[in-house]
Amino acid sequence: MPELRKDPVVGRWVIVAFERAARPSDFRTKREPPPDPGNCPFDPGREAMTPSEVFAIRPDGSLPNTPGWVTRVVPNRFPALRVEGELERRGEGIYDRMTGVGAHEVIIETPEHNLDLADLDEAGFLNVVRAWTQRVIDLARDPRLKYALVFKNSGRTAGASLRHSHSQLIATPIVPQQVKEEIAGGRRYWDFRERCIFCDLLAQETQDGRRIIAENDHFITYAPYASRFAFETCIVARRHLGSLGELSDAEALGLARALRDVLQRMTKLLDRPDYNFMVHNAPLDGGQLNHYHFHVEIMPRETTIAGFEWGSGFFINPVPPEAAAKYLREVV
Amino acid sequence: MPELRKDPVVGRWVIVAFERAARPSDFRTKREPPPDPGNCPFDPGREAMTPSEVFAIRPDGSLPNTPGWVTRVVPNRFPALRVEGELERRGEGIYDRMTGVGAHEVIIETPEHNLDLADLDEAGFLNVVRAWTQRVIDLARDPRLKYALVFKNSGRTAGASLRHSHSQLIATPIVPQQVKEEIAGGRRYWDFRERCIFCDLLAQETQDGRRIIAENDHFITYAPYASRFAFETCIVARRHLGSLGELSDAEALGLARALRDVLQRMTKLLDRPDYNFMVHNAPLDGGQLNHYHFHVEIMPRETTIAGFEWGSGFFINPVPPEAAAKYLREVV
Repeated sequence: MPELRKDPVVGRWVIVAFERAARPSDFRTKREPPPDPGNCPFDPGREAMTPSEVFAIRPDGSLPNTPGWVTRVVPNRFPALRVEGELERRGEGIYDRMTGVGAHEVIIETPEHNLDLADLDEAGFLNVVRAWTQRVIDLARDPRLKYALVFKNSGRTAGASLRHSHSQLIATPIVPQQVKEEIAGGRRYWDFRERCIFCDLLAQETQDGRRIIAENDHFITYAPYASRFAFETCIVARRHLGSLGELSDAEALGLARALRDVLQRMTKLLDRPDYNFMVHNAPLDGGQLNHYHFHVEIMPRETTIAGFEWGSGFFINPVPPEAAAKYLREVV
Repeated sequence: MPELRKDPVVGRWVIVAFERAARPSDFRTKREPPPDPGNCPFDPGREAMTPSEVFAIRPDGSLPNTPGWVTRVVPNRFPALRVEGELERRGEGIYDRMTGVGAHEVIIETPEHNLDLADLDEAGFLNVVRAWTQRVIDLARDPRLKYALVFKNSGRTAGASLRHSHSQLIATPIVPQQVKEEIAGGRRYWDFRERCIFCDLLAQETQDGRRIIAENDHFITYAPYASRFAFETCIVARRHLGSLGELSDAEALGLARALRDVLQRMTKLLDRPDYNFMVHNAPLDGGQLNHYHFHVEIMPRETTIAGFEWGSGFFINPVPPEAAAKYLREVV
């Protein structure tokens, strides 16, 4: 019998198809890599091919926009939103529109053209987390911006358009709907119980154990109870914190370790799947919220999103989260 | 400058990327067809390969589960939800679960193995609409079921797993979140203005004209102001009606004509794109609602949904809806 499960934060129901339950080997399909022309604009020595860098980690003290960097952040050459311009909002009869003010940046995660993020060593991974953190802190100073989403598209089906490993940051002049729903769900729970729902969820998951994949001093990695996707995972901070900008040095290292660990597990179990991850920060101007809690969602792109999902908001997950967690926990 | 646009019903913002504006020819990529082994279970003469039919249109008076049908509805062999069993709902600490009771049916749209839905003649298309309608009316009698979603996945990237043209119906024991959000948005508007938001939207679109693609006596086809996807379209009933079950005979024909017309336009303009469509009915047990209005959403699958969309609920649309409507209006 299939089972319906409800996400306790946003209230989304998911169909967990126990009978069709798939195994990791069902997903090890051949993936087409993203386009990889020579002349990669993210390679060292080609810094002039990108817009001027806004942040870089340069252990050798080299000059901006020259080789020597280990992590480099540049504006996207084809930005979805633009930093310049006034934020204007107006109606058009029944409709609302706004100028597309915002920021769209690319975090080049390594100078090495052929490494995946999961291949970086711990120090390299920590540099990536630091770059995200610095950019979020910096963009929070712009009063036009309300939210900064850090995310990664890895592989062609996940939306990557270049092979060279990179993540992205898009800052928007409004709080995105998905984040609003998480905040609203957190607030409903807070109003009822006066506790953070993510903190409660962590306590229950840790005690139960069936969906836990890994833990370190600062973060817990688990398969969400109402996972939408096969082998979806989530990393939650043990401490009630809202955003990247609040991470202590030890927590930044903890996040780098947790994310690197789960990407390596996924890489081994599913043979380098295409994937997305999204860093769920609190809004930029919201201050600390009692009812919102920093987390990272990681989704291998193994299942197709079809008409049912688009029309209903319901998802069908062919791998029960308990099975996904067991596979990911036990992979060597 | 990109523009942010808000969907007036569900409140979702979309980034319309005017500068990156793509043309139809940018999307005419080579598509991989769905798997097509010989021995298709949907071909006439192989009726025994599917579960027993629950509905069929048989102009020649032939017996159930034999050839002679022109449209045939059967339970899915690998259903996401099952008709048998009690609807049990219970908590598990912070979580909620429910038994996966529901229905999952396949509407085989034509006996011809190689026809696409857009290739059917008007009479054939009307039979498909009649089959949907009958099944929704029938399933509405089961008090365990709260919603019936009719949808189609056409092509491999849209989630089709068989070549033979078919649509699907999934009936669920709860109203899906996406529908709830549409209903909630419609109610907010009704509370404020005491008018249906879809009726108002239709009036504005018809007067404006830039996003209208086609009209007939009963339905209007347009490109939504805050389209999420390139060349997304929507078909809305002129009359304020809630679901398939309320269609008059003339309206059923009007829907068949409108949907066939827009699929044919899309087929020509984008060279047989993969696509999904979803029929948005009112809930099964809700009666007529002042603030909910029947419509069909059609989405060619030309853009990849990546981490930004998943993390934010924001979409980036590279084709302004006014341009999409013009292309679709003018295609011969």
